[in-house]
Amino acid sequence: MANILLNVSRRNCSPRSNELWRCFTRQFNKPPTANDLARPCGIASMQRLPVQSTSEGLDACFIGVPFDMGAGNRVGTRFGPRQIRTESVLLRRTNSGTGAAPYDSLQVADVGDVHIKLFNIKKACDGIRDHYREIIKNGCKPLTMGGDHTITYPILQAIKEKYGPVGLIHIDAHEDTQDVMIGEKIAHGTPFFRCVEEGLIESKRVVQIGLRGSCFGPEAREWGVKQGFRCVSAEECWHKSLVPLMEEVRAQMGSGPVYISFDIDGIDPGFAPGTGTPEIAGLTPIQAVEIIRGCRGLNVIGTDLVEVSPPYDTTGTTALLGANLLFEMLCVLPGVKYV
Amino acid sequence: MANILLNVSRRNCSPRSNELWRCFTRQFNKPPTANDLARPCGIASMQRLPVQSTSEGLDACFIGVPFDMGAGNRVGTRFGPRQIRTESVLLRRTNSGTGAAPYDSLQVADVGDVHIKLFNIKKACDGIRDHYREIIKNGCKPLTMGGDHTITYPILQAIKEKYGPVGLIHIDAHEDTQDVMIGEKIAHGTPFFRCVEEGLIESKRVVQIGLRGSCFGPEAREWGVKQGFRCVSAEECWHKSLVPLMEEVRAQMGSGPVYISFDIDGIDPGFAPGTGTPEIAGLTPIQAVEIIRGCRGLNVIGTDLVEVSPPYDTTGTTALLGANLLFEMLCVLPGVKYV
Amino acid sequence: MANILLNVSRRNCSPRSNELWRCFTRQFNKPPTANDLARPCGIASMQRLPVQSTSEGLDACFIGVPFDMGAGNRVGTRFGPRQIRTESVLLRRTNSGTGAAPYDSLQVADVGDVHIKLFNIKKACDGIRDHYREIIKNGCKPLTMGGDHTITYPILQAIKEKYGPVGLIHIDAHEDTQDVMIGEKIAHGTPFFRCVEEGLIESKRVVQIGLRGSCFGPEAREWGVKQGFRCVSAEECWHKSLVPLMEEVRAQMGSGPVYISFDIDGIDPGFAPGTGTPEIAGLTPIQAVEIIRGCRGLNVIGTDLVEVSPPYDTTGTTALLGANLLFEMLCVLPGVKYV
Amino acid sequence: MANILLNVSRRNCSPRSNELWRCFTRQFNKPPTANDLARPCGIASMQRLPVQSTSEGLDACFIGVPFDMGAGNRVGTRFGPRQIRTESVLLRRTNSGTGAAPYDSLQVADVGDVHIKLFNIKKACDGIRDHYREIIKNGCKPLTMGGDHTITYPILQAIKEKYGPVGLIHIDAHEDTQDVMIGEKIAHGTPFFRCVEEGLIESKRVVQIGLRGSCFGPEAREWGVKQGFRCVSAEECWHKSLVPLMEEVRAQMGSGPVYISFDIDGIDPGFAPGTGTPEIAGLTPIQAVEIIRGCRGLNVIGTDLVEVSPPYDTTGTTALLGANLLFEMLCVLPGVKYV
Amino acid sequence: MANILLNVSRRNCSPRSNELWRCFTRQFNKPPTANDLARPCGIASMQRLPVQSTSEGLDACFIGVPFDMGAGNRVGTRFGPRQIRTESVLLRRTNSGTGAAPYDSLQVADVGDVHIKLFNIKKACDGIRDHYREIIKNGCKPLTMGGDHTITYPILQAIKEKYGPVGLIHIDAHEDTQDVMIGEKIAHGTPFFRCVEEGLIESKRVVQIGLRGSCFGPEAREWGVKQGFRCVSAEECWHKSLVPLMEEVRAQMGSGPVYISFDIDGIDPGFAPGTGTPEIAGLTPIQAVEIIRGCRGLNVIGTDLVEVSPPYDTTGTTALLGANLLFEMLCVLPGVKYV
Amino acid sequence: MANILLNVSRRNCSPRSNELWRCFTRQFNKPPTANDLARPCGIASMQRLPVQSTSEGLDACFIGVPFDMGAGNRVGTRFGPRQIRTESVLLRRTNSGTGAAPYDSLQVADVGDVHIKLFNIKKACDGIRDHYREIIKNGCKPLTMGGDHTITYPILQAIKEKYGPVGLIHIDAHEDTQDVMIGEKIAHGTPFFRCVEEGLIESKRVVQIGLRGSCFGPEAREWGVKQGFRCVSAEECWHKSLVPLMEEVRAQMGSGPVYISFDIDGIDPGFAPGTGTPEIAGLTPIQAVEIIRGCRGLNVIGTDLVEVSPPYDTTGTTALLGANLLFEMLCVLPGVKYV
Repeated sequence: MANILLNVSRRNCSPRSNELWRCFTRQFNKPPTANDLARPCGIASMQRLPVQSTSEGLDACFIGVPFDMGAGNRVGTRFGPRQIRTESVLLRRTNSGTGAAPYDSLQVADVGDVHIKLFNIKKACDGIRDHYREIIKNGCKPLTMGGDHTITYPILQAIKEKYGPVGLIHIDAHEDTQDVMIGEKIAHGTPFFRCVEEGLIESKRVVQIGLRGSCFGPEAREWGVKQGFRCVSAEECWHKSLVPLMEEVRAQMGSGPVYISFDIDGIDPGFAPGTGTPEIAGLTPIQAVEIIRGCRGLNVIGTDLVEVSPPYDTTGTTALLGANLLFEMLCVLPGVKYV
Repeated sequence: MANILLNVSRRNCSPRSNELWRCFTRQFNKPPTANDLARPCGIASMQRLPVQSTSEGLDACFIGVPFDMGAGNRVGTRFGPRQIRTESVLLRRTNSGTGAAPYDSLQVADVGDVHIKLFNIKKACDGIRDHYREIIKNGCKPLTMGGDHTITYPILQAIKEKYGPVGLIHIDAHEDTQDVMIGEKIAHGTPFFRCVEEGLIESKRVVQIGLRGSCFGPEAREWGVKQGFRCVSAEECWHKSLVPLMEEVRAQMGSGPVYISFDIDGIDPGFAPGTGTPEIAGLTPIQAVEIIRGCRGLNVIGTDLVEVSPPYDTTGTTALLGANLLFEMLCVLPGVKYV
Repeated sequence: MANILLNVSRRNCSPRSNELWRCFTRQFNKPPTANDLARPCGIASMQRLPVQSTSEGLDACFIGVPFDMGAGNRVGTRFGPRQIRTESVLLRRTNSGTGAAPYDSLQVADVGDVHIKLFNIKKACDGIRDHYREIIKNGCKPLTMGGDHTITYPILQAIKEKYGPVGLIHIDAHEDTQDVMIGEKIAHGTPFFRCVEEGLIESKRVVQIGLRGSCFGPEAREWGVKQGFRCVSAEECWHKSLVPLMEEVRAQMGSGPVYISFDIDGIDPGFAPGTGTPEIAGLTPIQAVEIIRGCRGLNVIGTDLVEVSPPYDTTGTTALLGANLLFEMLCVLPGVKYV
Repeated sequence: MANILLNVSRRNCSPRSNELWRCFTRQFNKPPTANDLARPCGIASMQRLPVQSTSEGLDACFIGVPFDMGAGNRVGTRFGPRQIRTESVLLRRTNSGTGAAPYDSLQVADVGDVHIKLFNIKKACDGIRDHYREIIKNGCKPLTMGGDHTITYPILQAIKEKYGPVGLIHIDAHEDTQDVMIGEKIAHGTPFFRCVEEGLIESKRVVQIGLRGSCFGPEAREWGVKQGFRCVSAEECWHKSLVPLMEEVRAQMGSGPVYISFDIDGIDPGFAPGTGTPEIAGLTPIQAVEIIRGCRGLNVIGTDLVEVSPPYDTTGTTALLGANLLFEMLCVLPGVKYV
Repeated sequence: MANILLNVSRRNCSPRSNELWRCFTRQFNKPPTANDLARPCGIASMQRLPVQSTSEGLDACFIGVPFDMGAGNRVGTRFGPRQIRTESVLLRRTNSGTGAAPYDSLQVADVGDVHIKLFNIKKACDGIRDHYREIIKNGCKPLTMGGDHTITYPILQAIKEKYGPVGLIHIDAHEDTQDVMIGEKIAHGTPFFRCVEEGLIESKRVVQIGLRGSCFGPEAREWGVKQGFRCVSAEECWHKSLVPLMEEVRAQMGSGPVYISFDIDGIDPGFAPGTGTPEIAGLTPIQAVEIIRGCRGLNVIGTDLVEVSPPYDTTGTTALLGANLLFEMLCVLPGVKYV
Repeated sequence: MANILLNVSRRNCSPRSNELWRCFTRQFNKPPTANDLARPCGIASMQRLPVQSTSEGLDACFIGVPFDMGAGNRVGTRFGPRQIRTESVLLRRTNSGTGAAPYDSLQVADVGDVHIKLFNIKKACDGIRDHYREIIKNGCKPLTMGGDHTITYPILQAIKEKYGPVGLIHIDAHEDTQDVMIGEKIAHGTPFFRCVEEGLIESKRVVQIGLRGSCFGPEAREWGVKQGFRCVSAEECWHKSLVPLMEEVRAQMGSGPVYISFDIDGIDPGFAPGTGTPEIAGLTPIQAVEIIRGCRGLNVIGTDLVEVSPPYDTTGTTALLGANLLFEMLCVLPGVKYV
């Protein structure tokens, strides 16, 4: 299936270079620059990339999962993908901090959203799983915009089918390893219990970073440790760079396939107010960037950024943070060139 | 150029009817229903219609002009098109008040935004004019999402070239007929002076509805009347239906081509807070709908809805109002079927 | 079960009259006045009334149903009950417009919220039904704070068991009579289809007021008419008092039991921005009050006020409107004294 | 004392006309136009008028009273004057609805704020009274920006000293005629009881317009009627123009001195959310303008606009409404020329 | 006086365990878990604990003091207690960072708010003092939700009567040791001057942490030092853990009774925007947690968390921070068990 | 030209000390204290200082440049000066962190805003340059409130004329050294290219601090280095005090004239959400203060604080931060006394 040149016609192109036109017709899709297409202009796909409805021909894709029926407190993450796309117009092609130039080496597009069956959690999750099966079957790496954390469960179901059990780098304030919530097996507090139960992740290759806050008791942390998880509390991260931690995480992960699941509530609510279950005294955006950049060299086969809730994100700061972290994730995918 | 099936792949389609797929592949584009694609899902084009970058094959198009450099007070209308699209996901295919079913009789798409040359008002306006020349050359009727009111000037330049001078139904709190603002000829208070000066509109076929507020003096109103405009103050509209007024307006307009230019500040700030120069004691949304529905039967060849400023529209109410009024405009285009 | 004197101890009482203490210990519960307990003080039950967990001894009760899993667009009504209670602290005991003094003649309390099984719509609805069975078995009349409109279905299931099919005064922008939404039978667009299907309402004693907006087609309206509903579009209400309409509605309702279901989106988004599926050009709060006051004399056996979504209600205006309308509903219950 | 040319130096003046400079140095102060000084520019005095700290040489003055210690529910009106000034930059010199050109016939300035003794209500009120004594001693007419409604009491104390008891046109949702609130004589619910008690107003020349909402009982309304007040409930105003009412009010007021006290909560919260004790189903801004324009011809000797609370006015709509109503009040002062 | 089972009836309890019911009827009150009562459900007492109007039988209590008449800049803290309670529904029973399980060892309830005499600061403060006398007479430890910082003065008056002068751990951007503000002795900048004057605190056992910002001069800091206070500026805290500082503070405090007074403006406005006199470059939430956890082992006999102003807390972040810090304070009370 | 005593008359002065009156009539202007004039009172000039329209007699001045036509993404900085002034009322006279008492040694006033020719970027910039020529000709040091970053270019044009090329301490997320944006030479991404081109700055005495984020490629950073700039990325600043860096910067700057240009987006969006092109993982306010305090001893001849955009600054936090940083800049001007 051919690329859809969403925000471009020859008329938009500057006379000097016809750059905008070429940026969508060269070997790799390029997000338009502010010179090619002014930032307020254009329909808001992720970074205003071309949109296509399958992953055909893609090395990686941005994909939205507007699902929030698993949330136990504040809702609204169903609008996360749309808001992340809106704020992403500010993003550019290259990573000034690392030199990564993902759009010089990977074919990337926005493949839109999964259609969510809003009134039936089970069917909705099955639909997510089935959609991802298709998206990843050609090896395309999904960079998911959530949605609440429930969605990682059906995504990993699909990933398991293709890759087998994966390593997991899980950034979050919460373990999300409850067995049931209000009597139900599928909710945003249970995905990683399900993942262990179904063998979707390799427990010895799981790290959880940023855990904190009030809790129901020590059982959740203990359960993870018993499975073999490395559990890194926020307290262990306070006042320090996470570069050394990530060195250890890379060793833990080895060369097997790795999935990154980033709950925005891993970050302190001062930086990420727009989320459903915020916990104080969390990670900083600097540490978040260190974690993701620390994944360079790993065999990352998919990522998600979940729990951005636009109704609680009055100035778009949280969605902007999410968009940037997704871009940082793109920058550490295998095969990305650095300048 | 073929339609772009923006928010759809076969995977999204419900097994029962495969309706969503067909809604984009039948004779006329159809906005997906909430059953076909849940409202929170999908990239936000206007009503989640297919996107194409030219007007090829279209009877009408939604088009954004994210230009706000002509604003003299609050800014932010550059984000109007994106926000109107976002709120438009709530819109459905048929008008319950009139029975209009525009998507059964017209081919409509979202053709994206004009690329705005942000730092040079003159070049930006020339760019708008040139872009519209292309869009309308095949008779496609543009339904414009502004942007500030400056943009009506270059749009009408293009329209004049194709249709000659047009009748104008102008809803606004302000006359917008200054000669210069702060020494400049192009700004959001001057478009209709320019239009008269360049013969873009037929002055006897101009009506301005909703005028009010503090002013620099009686000159603006007098100037319009002298040109032959009918000037209807807000005071003349208070406490009453505008159905009788529109009967007179239809007579005034006759059978010639008519352009509708709707400044959202024509409406009271209680209903439309998200705008740059709000004036109290204005029209109601009911009256706005009466005005537009009252245009049925006229030879409408284009419309705009301008001055929605998202930074001042904290709950999206103003953008939603704008989206609905654009849909009402679509419903009165010639050729629309009624059920 | 004895009343719970939530916001009061003898220490709070003014030395002069010990009024506050007495206001909770006399024959009927009284909301504390601003003199008895300053408005910013006290835990926010509805009107800061006593709280009890059953309906024992009550003529009427305020009850919250924090359920929003049936919403197809914006969510957040799960926080409706809490926000309505918060804004209700401004309400006083008597209705200055009608002279109704409900707290002089009825025993009323806040009975808290139904515990919602958040991750399973079917079980959640069954839980609502079961809870209401208990609440109403002694004839206590529930004044419900929603929650999305789905909840009226299980509430009416319980009410049918006690009262048989009821007349329905339904204020809303939408018919809410779809058979299924995204393949599911229970959602906020389907409750009145379910009600007809299960014989919970008497179709000839149904009136829907405020219908408007874009729609999927004329079928919804036609279906209702075919059942025997009276469907009053918003257009029929524009620019006029609804006192005459309500005279007709009272005749239609007769002396049988009547349920009032008020979707806040029946009112124009200028007055009620905090809701999930707002439609422009709707009813005014004045008309809303006329509708409810017009129910005086009917055999009202229960009411709800649904679809207040606090995340979209930035200044509390919508919740305040909801709180007032609930108070107006209390004022038209049979047995209320007028001064 | 000479005028202070707050926002102007010769450098700001356009070369063509040097208009801005002249606008402050001619016979009467003129608010700068948007051409003279762009709207975003300039320190925000009311309409960016010159500021002076006494009323020397003035026919009328805008004056702020940032007092909110009398508020029983939401606070924040202490920032009302500053926010009204900020929004007032949009106002122009002439009233397009009536032709009033106040700045062609009266000398007007902004005289700043009363210094409020924040932590002692009694002293603060005495300070307000003393300040107003000075301001009005030369016949300068104060147009007051509140602050909560408490302030009308000390203002009228000063006015009584100069003019004797005055007629009162009081727009409000509430009577504000309690004797005490929480045991205190001075609060925002008591000013007009105090005024009657101290003979500051002529009870037969008092009209209250817009009364409504829940109340403590019928006593407040009855008390006013007993004093001789005309009490016009909101219900009496619904669905109609207030032009006829104002004809009667003018007859009631006769030729004696009249004070206008406008509580912004007289207006419906849909239009004026930013206030402390909002009541639904109130007046519209159209009716508010009709009331004030209906005062033309009366011997208005002072006015206030109170209860604008910026923290609850997220888009500035309420402050803008207040600024416009203050301008309308200026336009009906005796001696204003009409064009 | 028996516990009030505010949010619970047997109907709310899950059939499996009847946990919710038991959680209120066992030896110690327990906040309901999200499984027992979904987070959006239930009237918002602190952590949805039982409410009682006296401290009978309690080891500790949450108590609100909705007083903001002492504020010199932004107001609104009168709604602090209600908002803190609302956000507190997210809190759970155990402290994951320290293992503290306060609800396993202390009997805790929400005892509601002090009734504030809003229009008379002196009487209001006397009322607070008298209320606290009753609350603490049985040794119950108050965890106060403010309100502005004025309230610490009358609270410490009551505490002195029971415990004698206390040590004070005072976190704040400001010294709050002025003698008078605008000529008055009671305001939110004077409490600790009053406390020294009346011998309520032991000056050698006072530490102030987080002092910073522009000031009137060096006198305030010098005055404190002269009394024997330890004054720790924010600058001394930058870039570092406060664990070492707290070791010194514990030594300073010794074994005598200690009161913790935490002004939320001690924390940087990036994390705590919702307050009245924010100062930049302040403490982080991490440091705030370190301070409170560093109080473990001290003889803490009461605490407060003041200056949360909901109107300036658009996403609830500040109130959530306040709720968490109050929970952390509960966790360091003497007698709390750790798991 | 004499000072304008904006917020003061003898009536405002406290009887005890007549301090407020004296504070404006002594040798140096003093911002009124909260005791002299309560914070909510007074027209909002910067720190409520006297206003004058020229720099006559001044050592330094606050000046607003409400220009935002150079912004490529979000707009609104045209209201930056007004909002910074509004929040600045909280500021006091002395710097508690450094002891600087600028108002004891410098004559400072607010000189209002440059009149911006809103619809012509070139003329607007020429107007800024011309205005600054006048302001600085007597050696008065401008402390500029932006406005977008474009304005530094015309300001430095004026400064060059008086001082020759200057050293530049530039805090920003972006290099702002593009040659053109969308084909234009003047925009907020080009000022420092223009400055180098026109020799306004000494490239070897330029430091850029806080650079980060996605970028168009490495060229911008390389171009600066090639000119001789020192470019300090945000990454180099993470987790550390910037005191050592500033020691090096002072050495780099030497004794020549230095200009400080502070783009608020240099700071992390968690602390400064109200800006147009926010980038995550930025500097902290603590580091910002360290940078400015680190300029003490340099020959600072002017400063600006740009890119505060009030529409995106929902709680005023960003403007407050800007106001504080401007005060810190005042505190490091040569000649300031320290207590």
